[in-house]
Order: sequence, then structure tokens, then C-alpha cells
Amino acid sequence: MNAVVKDMPSQDYKVADISLADWGRKEIDIAEHEMPGLMSIRKKYAADLPLKGVRVTGSLHMTIQTAVLIETLKDLGADVRWASCNIFSTQDHAAAAIAQSGTPVFAWKGETLEEYWDCTLDALTFPGDGSDKYRGPELVVDDGGDVTLLIHKGYELEHGSTWVDGPSESEEEQIIKNLLKRVHKERPGFWGKVVKDWRGVSEETTTGVHRLYQLAQAGKLLVPAINVNDSVTKSKFDNLYGCRESLADGLKRAMDVMLAGKVAVVCGYGDVGKGSAHSLRAYGCRVVVTEIDPINALQAAMEGFEVNTVENTLGRGDIYVTTTGNKDVITLEHMTQMKNQAIVCNIGHFDNEIQVEKLNKLQGVKKVNIKPQVDKYILPDGREMFLLAEGRLVNLGCATGHPSFVMSNSFSNQTLAQMDLWANREFYDKKVYVLPKKLDEEVARLHLEKIGVKLTKLTDAQADYLGVPVDGPFKPEHYRY
Amino acid sequence: MNAVVKDMPSQDYKVADISLADWGRKEIDIAEHEMPGLMSIRKKYAADLPLKGVRVTGSLHMTIQTAVLIETLKDLGADVRWASCNIFSTQDHAAAAIAQSGTPVFAWKGETLEEYWDCTLDALTFPGDGSDKYRGPELVVDDGGDVTLLIHKGYELEHGSTWVDGPSESEEEQIIKNLLKRVHKERPGFWGKVVKDWRGVSEETTTGVHRLYQLAQAGKLLVPAINVNDSVTKSKFDNLYGCRESLADGLKRAMDVMLAGKVAVVCGYGDVGKGSAHSLRAYGCRVVVTEIDPINALQAAMEGFEVNTVENTLGRGDIYVTTTGNKDVITLEHMTQMKNQAIVCNIGHFDNEIQVEKLNKLQGVKKVNIKPQVDKYILPDGREMFLLAEGRLVNLGCATGHPSFVMSNSFSNQTLAQMDLWANREFYDKKVYVLPKKLDEEVARLHLEKIGVKLTKLTDAQADYLGVPVDGPFKPEHYRY
Amino acid sequence: MNAVVKDMPSQDYKVADISLADWGRKEIDIAEHEMPGLMSIRKKYAADLPLKGVRVTGSLHMTIQTAVLIETLKDLGADVRWASCNIFSTQDHAAAAIAQSGTPVFAWKGETLEEYWDCTLDALTFPGDGSDKYRGPELVVDDGGDVTLLIHKGYELEHGSTWVDGPSESEEEQIIKNLLKRVHKERPGFWGKVVKDWRGVSEETTTGVHRLYQLAQAGKLLVPAINVNDSVTKSKFDNLYGCRESLADGLKRAMDVMLAGKVAVVCGYGDVGKGSAHSLRAYGCRVVVTEIDPINALQAAMEGFEVNTVENTLGRGDIYVTTTGNKDVITLEHMTQMKNQAIVCNIGHFDNEIQVEKLNKLQGVKKVNIKPQVDKYILPDGREMFLLAEGRLVNLGCATGHPSFVMSNSFSNQTLAQMDLWANREFYDKKVYVLPKKLDEEVARLHLEKIGVKLTKLTDAQADYLGVPVDGPFKPEHYRY
Amino acid sequence: MNAVVKDMPSQDYKVADISLADWGRKEIDIAEHEMPGLMSIRKKYAADLPLKGVRVTGSLHMTIQTAVLIETLKDLGADVRWASCNIFSTQDHAAAAIAQSGTPVFAWKGETLEEYWDCTLDALTFPGDGSDKYRGPELVVDDGGDVTLLIHKGYELEHGSTWVDGPSESEEEQIIKNLLKRVHKERPGFWGKVVKDWRGVSEETTTGVHRLYQLAQAGKLLVPAINVNDSVTKSKFDNLYGCRESLADGLKRAMDVMLAGKVAVVCGYGDVGKGSAHSLRAYGCRVVVTEIDPINALQAAMEGFEVNTVENTLGRGDIYVTTTGNKDVITLEHMTQMKNQAIVCNIGHFDNEIQVEKLNKLQGVKKVNIKPQVDKYILPDGREMFLLAEGRLVNLGCATGHPSFVMSNSFSNQTLAQMDLWANREFYDKKVYVLPKKLDEEVARLHLEKIGVKLTKLTDAQADYLGVPVDGPFKPEHYRY
Repeated sequence: MNAVVKDMPSQDYKVADISLADWGRKEIDIAEHEMPGLMSIRKKYAADLPLKGVRVTGSLHMTIQTAVLIETLKDLGADVRWASCNIFSTQDHAAAAIAQSGTPVFAWKGETLEEYWDCTLDALTFPGDGSDKYRGPELVVDDGGDVTLLIHKGYELEHGSTWVDGPSESEEEQIIKNLLKRVHKERPGFWGKVVKDWRGVSEETTTGVHRLYQLAQAGKLLVPAINVNDSVTKSKFDNLYGCRESLADGLKRAMDVMLAGKVAVVCGYGDVGKGSAHSLRAYGCRVVVTEIDPINALQAAMEGFEVNTVENTLGRGDIYVTTTGNKDVITLEHMTQMKNQAIVCNIGHFDNEIQVEKLNKLQGVKKVNIKPQVDKYILPDGREMFLLAEGRLVNLGCATGHPSFVMSNSFSNQTLAQMDLWANREFYDKKVYVLPKKLDEEVARLHLEKIGVKLTKLTDAQADYLGVPVDGPFKPEHYRY
Repeated sequence: MNAVVKDMPSQDYKVADISLADWGRKEIDIAEHEMPGLMSIRKKYAADLPLKGVRVTGSLHMTIQTAVLIETLKDLGADVRWASCNIFSTQDHAAAAIAQSGTPVFAWKGETLEEYWDCTLDALTFPGDGSDKYRGPELVVDDGGDVTLLIHKGYELEHGSTWVDGPSESEEEQIIKNLLKRVHKERPGFWGKVVKDWRGVSEETTTGVHRLYQLAQAGKLLVPAINVNDSVTKSKFDNLYGCRESLADGLKRAMDVMLAGKVAVVCGYGDVGKGSAHSLRAYGCRVVVTEIDPINALQAAMEGFEVNTVENTLGRGDIYVTTTGNKDVITLEHMTQMKNQAIVCNIGHFDNEIQVEKLNKLQGVKKVNIKPQVDKYILPDGREMFLLAEGRLVNLGCATGHPSFVMSNSFSNQTLAQMDLWANREFYDKKVYVLPKKLDEEVARLHLEKIGVKLTKLTDAQADYLGVPVDGPFKPEHYRY
Repeated sequence: MNAVVKDMPSQDYKVADISLADWGRKEIDIAEHEMPGLMSIRKKYAADLPLKGVRVTGSLHMTIQTAVLIETLKDLGADVRWASCNIFSTQDHAAAAIAQSGTPVFAWKGETLEEYWDCTLDALTFPGDGSDKYRGPELVVDDGGDVTLLIHKGYELEHGSTWVDGPSESEEEQIIKNLLKRVHKERPGFWGKVVKDWRGVSEETTTGVHRLYQLAQAGKLLVPAINVNDSVTKSKFDNLYGCRESLADGLKRAMDVMLAGKVAVVCGYGDVGKGSAHSLRAYGCRVVVTEIDPINALQAAMEGFEVNTVENTLGRGDIYVTTTGNKDVITLEHMTQMKNQAIVCNIGHFDNEIQVEKLNKLQGVKKVNIKPQVDKYILPDGREMFLLAEGRLVNLGCATGHPSFVMSNSFSNQTLAQMDLWANREFYDKKVYVLPKKLDEEVARLHLEKIGVKLTKLTDAQADYLGVPVDGPFKPEHYRY
Repeated sequence: MNAVVKDMPSQDYKVADISLADWGRKEIDIAEHEMPGLMSIRKKYAADLPLKGVRVTGSLHMTIQTAVLIETLKDLGADVRWASCNIFSTQDHAAAAIAQSGTPVFAWKGETLEEYWDCTLDALTFPGDGSDKYRGPELVVDDGGDVTLLIHKGYELEHGSTWVDGPSESEEEQIIKNLLKRVHKERPGFWGKVVKDWRGVSEETTTGVHRLYQLAQAGKLLVPAINVNDSVTKSKFDNLYGCRESLADGLKRAMDVMLAGKVAVVCGYGDVGKGSAHSLRAYGCRVVVTEIDPINALQAAMEGFEVNTVENTLGRGDIYVTTTGNKDVITLEHMTQMKNQAIVCNIGHFDNEIQVEKLNKLQGVKKVNIKPQVDKYILPDGREMFLLAEGRLVNLGCATGHPSFVMSNSFSNQTLAQMDLWANREFYDKKVYVLPKKLDEEVARLHLEKIGVKLTKLTDAQADYLGVPVDGPFKPEHYRY
């Protein structure tokens, strides 16, 4: 497939196989029953069309669950274009169903990095209006911050930055630069017009949020941003309970491996690490946790995990899982000392958690593809190692990501964030915001009935005693859940 | 595909797609590392070829793990033919790899019932020798007892039984009768010759074992039988720890459903039920167990499970799993009263644990296929229900069965049983045997090193004190583990 | 025993039995090995005597662990006086050992409410200096805020408040008023002098912190306060992991009851509720959680707990545990409808979580004391109910509170807070503070070696990538752990 | 206290403090509600007095639960005398209540070994009838086999054995010999008369059962014996679920130690070990299991435990628990290499699981008693170690044994065994029997209602399909649960 920087095509989508649309639609129907938050929001707000005509670009794993998010945004009136935020995470039948329903979507499982960035550009290129051939989004749903990055870098280029001409730290960085240069040439002034219309971004994940805070701190953030990741109903649910289900799913689909009796090393004991470590232990793994933070380390120890360094596990670890958001967590040196047939994967963020590039360039290494997303490396000394999803997110690359119910929490936050960014666009500053606790509680509330939860209601006397409103919010801001 | 009762084909296998052989071989290579029991047996005995030239028919799920079993038997010298024991359980790349390597195998995922029984016949039809066109097996590896059933019924037919002409309780029974009548016509005297050479059967599973004990009690058992199912290293491992991993795997691959927060009803709390219930709870399900046996019921209660009847869960159960070996555990009446979008599946034995036939015949029901092995039923009142693997084993139909490591235990028992049946064929009676505890312990021992277990060794004084040999066996026969 | 408002006694302590001092000392020795945080602080700071001569009043459960805290404060140079903050929580051998070593301590297990408040006054009454007969503390370690309350109310009385003459909502409120009136008469101007010297308070628990924020908001807070409760190494450790161990301990020592198979109702799913619910489930209870907050309720559901109201559990609940900090959580009406022989207890905060007063006054109820802290109530209809520790903290009343190791975390925070309040007394405002994250991490770090944890150290490149210092602090303030 | 071989005293009991009877009675009342099996048996059979006038000697931990057993036997008509089977396991208030009610009981917490064996003799010495001054029991309830041992050894002595004159392997053995010699002298022919009337014994525990099988194999067993230990409702409940609750209870009451974060070494992974290991893990311990049996070892590994030798844990193990029934499991050499302040205890059977005698005799060791059942040993090199209950059963020595509900299962088996031994005394041979599965299921059934279990009932068609009676028994004899 080949894309980018051309006239709007008559067929405004790029997917792997449009004939998968029916299957995708069936699974979207199932998912809707599992996503009560999004469905309630549709029911409550669709009549008013709060996002009527608003141009929304999404860059977020193009899965069945995301399809329900997309159609929720459309029900609220939005004009949506979508790309995935990971080259392996698209479910092709989900993308097909979305394309079929008339929403421009640019995503397929197994994109090259060039295709990936072309798709991102496609997703933020809306048809022009009158004099302009192209227009940008008014709102962005971002996951990892790639759309935000592209716009900021494009805008800086138009304002004199020479970053595109500097040396690149990675292959991907160079691809971005090439793209920006091409756009700069073919669409002069494009990024300035994009920024002019852009009203805000809601960001899904830790890494993207981190980038946003850095931009804000540097005074470079071009729009208001809502940090969806740090809603309790996101970070303490999707990161924790999502991974608790999807890590083993990825491992099983990739390797069919028995987990009981194995030694699993989970690098990091944040929310993702917690979900991962508990899941593996429930399967009968002996789990070793690695941590840099003494508080998280003490939590892991209190839960009965051995806390040690990666170095001290080499030779006995059967499975390695990175969950950190950091880089170089599993180094090439680690990999060359692992037990034969160790399995290495990442459920944290970028593929640089594992030194994949170095591994691929290692003299004498042999890479045998077993099936899509599963590679066996035969190391120079003959020992073997399995790398899943080329070091990218194993739950999305090797399975289908988090299940619908937990994503309904995250995406309800996304939807409320989009609505609020638009409704109050006059009042937001170019800062990073979190959703108010009241909305956070509301998202939780929308998911309780589906699973049969009966809440207790405070009496007035009790509410007075506690000094909180009868209907919440119930906790001080610093409460940790 | 079409099979049965014809000349030996030049291409002596029936598989879905022989081009999958390479992929199958890669996964067999991986599995070998996870099956230390079988690999140790190869190493220890292959040189002596204890099964040299022995004709062995296998009827057992044609998976990657079974491929390692087959090649172990071949390494020991056997002449092997194989079929699956379940219409959905074949992994086509495993079958292809086995076929490619020259072993006759008759199995593909999604056989019709007619094809299934034809394959079973193919697997027990060895090329003739001299005057005889066909010969039967000398040993049988059975799972569920279908080969054993076919031979016994065929033999009885040749000895005057009129069972084949009587009414059938199910579609499948009629198919068996039709096959037997055809064989009777086309291969007169075939079953008598088969029985003449047949020296024994080793049976894999509870249901098949149950049939064997019934045959033995009725004085109709034609050969010695080894009950592999009741080796501790089988029933307390594969049934328990296998299901603990493969049930969720099947559910996830089929439905991508969030398990946390759901109410799951596990029918039966034997070893399979125990593995299933604990797995689902670890995922955050609230598990309700149903039981007929007060002892197992009390065990479930002591483990913190609610123990109730299926009837009392209707309307709140999200997921139903049968694990019983019994029939009519989930009835049509149950299914018509379930919560909307309930998921129903079976990991026990036959598909009659759930009244699938009645469901299919229900007036006004609509069946929508979502993807292979996943059907949505729209009931007359509009509520929906998902049935997985058409009521057959969900872990084999929707995932890939138990993982290699635990199957290595079961299959090591199988291999030792086959070797012993042959070596001591003069001494066995037509009864059902279990493997001696010493061998059971040996199977366990073969799996310890792989997972880093260090055993403690008794001193002589301690062994004296306990009154057991220093090297075992360590426990009285009635010990329950 | 009878106390208060008299000359300094020659024997400046009140304990149950000074002869228990040796036993107490032996257990203090053991506890020191389990409290590495406090011992490290002693080692690091004792030479400098940072609290040299500072008058410190403590009001905190007088247990073995608290003894180690007290002796740590003394090692840092402080002049300490102590009372318990709960009438049942004193371990008499701990109090004896502290008294023996020369520290004035006023605490015994089973105080009356009058004795309790007298002891509190004793603890804040230091011998005078020159013209003044009595002096107050310079620093306060508070747990629940009773010392803080007494000083504030006394001070307000001296400034014209008529609160002491108004009607009282409870027996205890009246006792406090009576005490204040007596002191007002016998020690004119006392509270003004106390406040003049008072430099700060560090508060241990949620309820006390809540009171402090209310005072601060109302502009009435008289000193700087450090909220120790909301250090991560306090709230996420002591509340959670402490209760996970001490709830069952209290239940067992009180009732010797089998937990497996019982239905346990845990009211509240904050940190205390989480620890309680998980502990009971691990014992084989079926746990029902009640919650007012939809987020916590969703967390409970994701962990597989049934979330329901107390009302819906009546008749099936065997054990009720309140963990809320709220009042009237278990009402008299609830108690009159419970299953026969239900056990009711509180591990939240005050005894008003359960309507004990109403129960005691119920017409026709009969109370049978089984042993200290265990009462059987025979209700008018003949059903029986057990109430533990008269509705006060069951882990302190019926067992010995949290174990040393986890308390070492909390008390290390306390000690660091006291040191900082004193060292920076010029810079603090009359507000509520939390300890900086760096100190929180330091507390955790002090406990890692004891339990064999090996931390991973960031490389400079990784720290840059994350944008954090190599040695921490590692997380943004809003991080929830 | 001093006992044995004298005239029947007017006050026919020996307890620590008869004034504790009221308290004991209150706790017996509570326990009756938790022992539905025994109470149902009383209700069903008491009217017929099936044990009318039968002399029953019991030697079994004299706890509250045992009191309910004793009173059940009395309700069935038996004439009961009782001793404890462990010098530390008596609950003095339970013994007092039983004595108060007129049943001769000889037991107090903290007997010397001499007193212990004197009490055992007292318990089997019934008042004479006519010419005989003393008579023995007709039935024995034994736990560990001490009554059985005494009678057998006494009988052998009267028949010429010279065992009493040989050298003794332990102090206790010599005490037994001395007692036998004294009785032999003072009550000539006593043991012969005892054996003449003796009709059977029911044995509670693995070790006692093991002794019985050895006696039977040697042809020396003098009476029929029922192995109660191997009823499923005993071994899979009391051993497993009892220890799961009572081990931590013993550790907590003895040491108040934080379990989370500790390394616990559980020696043995039988039922007792399984309960112990899972309990400790639930508290947050990292548990290492030691095993001699490869099957049990593999089970432990599949459950995620590290399986290693004691030697390999020295220096990192914080808590050691023996559960084996074997001797010398923790040796002196182990103890001298443990981490400072390690805790060592036994929940298996005899105190020789730990080399306590060797430890006590170690040159330079210093023993400091902390409180009853808790000793600190200061080793020659200064390191310290805690030994609980002097190496005897920690749950009985340091806590109150298993909770009532699980003991109701074991004791219902005991009661049914006693009834059957008597009713069918003509038909039993001098062999070791287990209770029929039907009774085993009945015991379970008697406990289901109390905990709200709803059983499913087989239809006739299902029972036919399974080949079992509609009402059970449901499983083949070899079924392992």
C-alpha cells in the first residue's frame, strides 16, 4: 500500500480487506453490549449533537472497541477521520466495518513505519472547504501523541525550525522528518492553517501525557489538552485490569505456552506491571518484579513478589515482560544471557523498552519467523529466544488488546473530554487538564449496572458527618484509590 | 473431503492443507522443549526400539502436542496411524507436519460427523500383509474410547449383534451404525481379524475410562486396557492445570470478553471444574459452582465459591461452563431463561453436556455465525446467547487445547502404558489397569528439572521411620494428592 | 484508677501492671528487628539529637510498635509523654516497659471513657518550669486528633466559646466538656499557655486528617499540621497490608471461627476495606462489599467481589466488618435482622460505625460477656449476635494491632514529620502539609533491605528519557500507586 | 500434679482450673452452632442410645471442639473418659467445662511428659465392676495412637516382651517403659483384661494410621481399627482447610509477626503443607516448598511455588514450617545456619520433625522464654532463632487448633466410626478399615446447609448415563477429589 500527499481519493479509506466489514460489524454489535459507558453517553447526548460538524482526528489502536468510540463520536455529530497509533494493533475487520460505514479510516495490521506515518497524515487531512484544498482537525483524540507531535513539528518547521534537517536517532525519526519535508513542499502553510482551527487534544496514555506536560512546561503546547490517562477510571482500570486480561491472552495466542511453573520477570510495578504480575501469578508462574522506585518495589514485596534486577534473573527467567514506559529495560546484553527459549515481550509503551534494533543488528543472530508477530532468534551461541510483536505491545500485536468493558471506561473519559474541550473551548488555556472527579465518578457509575453492582447511598446525616455531598464527589483530590 | 472403505490411497493421509507443514514443524520444535517427559523417554528408550514394528492406532486430538507424542511412538519403533477424537480439535498445521513426515494422519478442523468416523476407520486400517488387504492395530491410544467402541461394536456385529439395526438416540449413533454396516458389507470378517491382533488400549480420559470399566464389568472387554486418566500425573495435572490455562484461552480467542466483574457458572467441581473455577476467579469473575456430590460441593464452598443450582443463577450468570462428563447439564429450558448475551460453553467431555440439538431445533431460534466456532443464537423472545464450539470442547475448538508442558505428563503416561502393554502382553488380562505408582512418580520426575525443581532426598533413617523406600514410591495407594 | 488535674505525681505514669515490663521489653527487642525504618533513623540522626529537649505528647495506641516509636523519639532527644488513643488498644506489657524505662505513659487496656480523657490530659501536661506549674507540648503526635481537639476546644473556651455548656450528642462529648470545665476552673489560662508553645502536630489517620482539613478550612487551625496518613508509605501500606493481617487475627483471637465457607460483608472498599476483603477471601469467605463511591465499587467488582447493600445481605451474612470512617454503617435495624450468630466488628475508625449505643439500649436485649472484648447479644426474638471490642477497632481490641514491619513505615513518616516540624518551625504556616515525595520514597527505601529487595538503578540516559532524577523522586504528585 | 496407679479418686478428673468451666461452657455453646455434623448426629441417633453404656476412652486434643465430640458420644449413651494427645493442646476452659459436667477428663495445657502418660492411663482406667478394681475401654478414639500403643505394649509385656527393659531412643520412650513397669507391678494382668473387652479403635491422624497399618501388617493388631484420617471429609478438609486457618493463627498469637514480604519455607506439600503454603502466600509471603515426592513437588511447582531444599533456603528463609510426619526435617545443622531471628515451627505431627532435643543440648546455646510456647534461642555465634511450642503442633500450642466447622467433619467421621465399630463388632476383623464412601458423602452433606450450599440433584436419566445411583455414592474408590 502506498499513501499520502495526494488528492483526496474517491474512496476515502485504506484498509486491508473491506470484505471483512460484515464480520467486523457483528463484533461491534457484541462489543456495544460490553461498553455501557459509551452507549449511555450516546443515549443521553446524541439528540443534542454536541459535536455537530466538529472535525475530529483520532490516532488510536483501530480495534473493535475503538470502532464503538468512533461511532459514539459520530452519533454526537462529529466528522471523524481515524488512524491507528501502532503498526500492529489494527484489527482489520474492525477497520473494514468502520470504512464500510463511511468513516475515513487509514489502518491495517502490519503497516510499515512509512505507511504508518502516511496514515497519520491521512487521518488529519480533512477535505477542504472553498479555497482550501485541505483542512485539519478541530479536535484530536491521541494515544501516545503522534498526531500532536506531527502538528507541533510541522508548525515549528513552518516557523523556522531546522529539526527536520538534523541527524535522527532512529529510523522512525527520519521517516517523520521526510514526511514533514514532503508536506512542507507540497502543502505550503498547511500546518499553520491546521493549528488555527485546532481547539484541543485528549490524550489516552502515560507516554503521550508525559510529552504533553513537557510541551506545556516548555511553553510550546499549541492547544488545551486533557490528560485522560490519569482519570482514575482510566489508569486504575484499563492499565491494571485490562493488562491483567490481555497480557496472558497475547502470550497464549502467540506461544500456546504453559505458564504454570515458569519464572516470569515483570519489569516495572506500576498499574500495567501490577496487572501483569498478578495475572501471571494466578496462572502459577513464579513472578520476579524489577523496579526503580522504592515505593512500588515495597508494594510488590508486600504482595509476595520477589523484587530483583533483570541481571539476577538471567538463566532462570522463562518469560520477560516490560511494562515501564522507559527505554532499554531489556538490553541486548540481557538477551544474550537468557535461558534457552526465553520469551520476551513488551506491554509498556514503545518498542524501545527492549533493544530490538540492537538485537536485529547483532552479528551472527538468525531470525526465524514462526507466524505473524512471533519471531525466534537463534543467537550466535545457539541459544534461542522468542520475541513477540517485534517488541511492540504484545496484547495488541498478538491478541486483540484490552477487552471492551474496560475500554468503555477509558473511552467514556475520552468522549467526555472531547465534549468538554469543544463546549468550553473559549475557557480552556493551553495547558494540560484532568477531568473533574465528578465526571470520573460518573464514568464509573455508568458501568455498574451492567455488572450488577448495587451502590449504597449516603444519608444526609452521614454526608454531613463526612463533609461530602450526598451524590459525590466523595474523595479529596489526593486520594489514591 | 470424502473418505472411507476404499483401496489404500497412494497418498496415505487426509489433512486440510499440506502446505502448513513447515509452520507445524516450527511449532513442534518449540513444543519439544516444553515436553521434557516425552523427550526423556525418547532418549532413554529409542535405541532399543521397544515398539519396533508395532501397529499403533491413535484417536486423540491432532494437535502440536499430539504430534510430539506420535513422533515419540515412532522413535520407539511403532508404525503409527492417527485420527483426531473431536471434529474441531485438530490443528491443521500439526496434522500437515505429521503427514509431511510420512505418518498417515486423518484429521482436519471442522470435520462433519461422517467424516470424523471415516477418519477413525482410516486410522485403524493398516495396509494388509500378503493375503489380507487390511489389518488392524496391535495397540490403540484412545481418547474418549471411539476406536475401542468401533472395534467392539464391529466385532459384536460379526458375532450376531443387531444393534446396528435398532433405533438411534442421536444423529451420531446412526452414523456409526451406517459405517459399521458398510464395513460389514465391504470387508467381511474384518473386525474379527482386527481383534485377533489387538493387544491392548491405553485410554486418555474419564469418559473413555468409564466406558472401559463398564465393558469389563459386563465381561465384554476384548483386550487389556490401561487407564491413563487416573494416573495422578494425568488427572491431577492435565485436567486441573491444563484447564486452568486453556479455558480462559478459549473464551478469549472466541469472544475477547472481559472476564472481570462477570458472573461465571461452572457446572461441576471435579478436577476440570476446579481448574476452570479457579482460573475464572483469578480473572475477577464471581464464580458460582454447581455440584451433585456433597464432598465436591463442600470443597467448593471451602474455597469460597457460592454453590448453587443452574436454575438459581439464571438471569445473573454471564458465562456458563460445563465440566461434568454428564449430559443435559445445561438444558434448553436453562438457555431460554439466561441473561441476554450469556456465553455458554463446554470443557467437560461430549457436546451433550449442553442440549445443543434441542437448541438448534427450537422453533423460532435464529443462529448467526460470528466466526468459526462462535455462534450467536437469537432466541424467540429476542434475547441473545453465544454458543462456543457448537457445545464441544471449548479449549480445543476455540483455542489450541492444553499447553505442551502439562500434556507432556499425560503423554508420558500414554507412552509408558503403550510400552508396558506391549512388553508384557503375555501377562495382562482383559481388565482395566492403572500404571504403578512408581511409574507415576517417574513421569513427574521427568518434568521437574525443566522448571527448576530441587527435590529433597530421604535419608535412610527417615525412610525407615516412614517405612518407605528411599527412592519411592512414597505414598499408599489410597493417597489422594 | 482515677487521675487528672492534680499535682505531678512522684510516680509519673499510669499503667495496668508494671511487673509486665520485662515481658514488654523482650517483645520490644523483637519488634526492633522488624522495624528497620525506625532503627535506621535512630542510627542516622541520634548523634545530632534533632529533637533535643523538645516536649512531645503522643496520643496513639500504646502498643509494642509504638514503644519503638517512643524510644526513637527519645533517642532523637525528645521529652516524651504518651497516652493511648483508644480505650482498648493498649498492650499492657508495652506500656509497662515504657513506664519502667522512665517515660511517662498513661494507658491501660480497658479504660473507661473518663479515664481515657484524663490520660490524654496527663499526656499533655508536662511539669512546669519556674513560675508555671504545668506546661504543654511543643509537638504532638496524634491519631484521630483527640489531643488536637482537646487543645483547640480548651483554647476556644478560654476565648469565650460556650460549647461546653451546650447539649451533647454522645456520652463521650459530655465527658470532654466536663473535663474542660474542670481544667478551666483548676488551671486558669492553661490552654493559652499550651498554644503559645505548641509548634505543630503530625496526624496518623484519615479521620484525624479530615478534622484538620476542616479546622484549616474554617481558619481555626492553631498550628502547622503534617498529614502523615496520606504519605503513600502510610495509607497504602498500614491501612492496606496492616489490615490484611490484623483483621483475621482479631477475628480468630476473639471467636476462633472458621472463615472458609462463610459470607463476610465488608462495608467500604478504601484501603482498609481492600485489605480486609482480600484477607477474608483468601481464607475462603465469600465476600460482599458495600460502597457509596462508584469508583471504589467498580474496583471491588473488577476484583471479583459482589457489591451490594447491607440490607441485601441480611440473613446470609455471617460476618460484618465496617471499614469506612463513616457513622451508622451498621444500624440497629440491620442488627435485628441478621442471621443467627452473626459476628459484627469494626476496623474503620470510631465505634459509631456500628450503632452500639442503640443496641445496648434496645428493649429486651440481653448482653452476655464471653471473654474480654467479646460480647454475645441475645436479641428480643432469641437470635444471637456477637459484637467484638464493643464496636471499637477489632484488630487492636481483640488482637495486637498491625504487625511491626508495616507500622515501621507509618512511624518512620511520623518521626520524619516531627523532625521536620521542629527543624523548620519558622517556615511552616498554620496549614495541613504532606511529606514531600522524596521522604516518602526514603521511608520505603529504609524497609527494602530487611526483606531482600534489590532495586534497579536508572542509567543517566534512562533518567533523561523519563525526565526524572536518577535517584528520584520518580513519580508526578498525582500518581496513585 | 501427680497421678496414676492408685485408687479411683472421689473427684474423677484432673484439670488446671475448674473455675474456668463457665467460660468453657459459653464457648462450647458457640461451637455447637459451628458443628452441624455432630449436632445432626445427636438429633438423629440420640433417642436410640446406640452406644448405651459403652466404655469409650478418648485420647485427642482436649479443646472446645473435642468437648462437643465428647458430649455427642455421651448423648449416644457412651461412658466416656478423656485425655489429651499432646502436652500443649488442651484448652483449660474446655477441660474444665467437661469435668464440671461430670465426665472424667485428665488434661491441662503444659503437662510434663510423665504427667501426659499418666493422664493417658487415667483415661483408659474405668472403675471396676464387682471383682475387678479397674476395667479398660470397649472403644478407643485415638489421635496419634498413644492409647493403642500403650495397650499393645502393655499386652506384649504381659506376654513376655522385654521391650520395657531395653534401651530407649528418647526420653519419652523411657517414660512409657517406666509407666508400663509400674502398672505391671501394681495391676497384674490388667492389660489382658483390657484387651479382652476392647472392641475397636478409630484413629484420627496420618501418623496413628501409619502405626496401625504397620501393626496389621505385622499381624499384631489386637482389634479392628477404622482409619478416620483417610475419609475424604477428614484428610481433604481438616488437614487442608484447618491448617490453612490455624497455622497463621498460631504464628500471629505467638509472634505478632508481619507475614507479608517474608520468605517462608514449608517442608512438605501433602494436605497439611498445601493448606500451610497457600495460607502463607495469601498473606504475601514468598513461599518455598520442600518435597521428597516428585508428584507433590510438581503440584507445588504448578501452583507457582519455588521447590527447593532446606539447605538452599538457609540465610533467606524467615519462617520454617514442618508439615511432614517425618523426623529430622529441620536439623540442628539447618538451625545453626538460619537467618537471624528466623522462626521455626511444626504443624506436621511429632516434635521430632525439628531436632529440638539436639538444639537444647547444643553447647553454648541460650534459651530465653518470651512467653508460654515462645522461646528465643541465642546461638553460640549470637544469631537468634524463635522456636514455637517447643517444636510441637504450633496451631494447638500457640493458638486453639482448627476451627469448629472443619473439626465437625472429622469428628462426625469419628462418631460414625465409633457407632459402626460397636454396632457391627461381630463382623469386623482385626484389620484397618476406612468408612464407606456413602458415609463420607453423608458427613459432607450434614455440613452443607449451614453454609448455604444448594446441591444439584441428578435426574434418573443422568444417573443412568453416569452409571451411579441418584443419591450417590458418586465416585469410584480411586477418585482423588
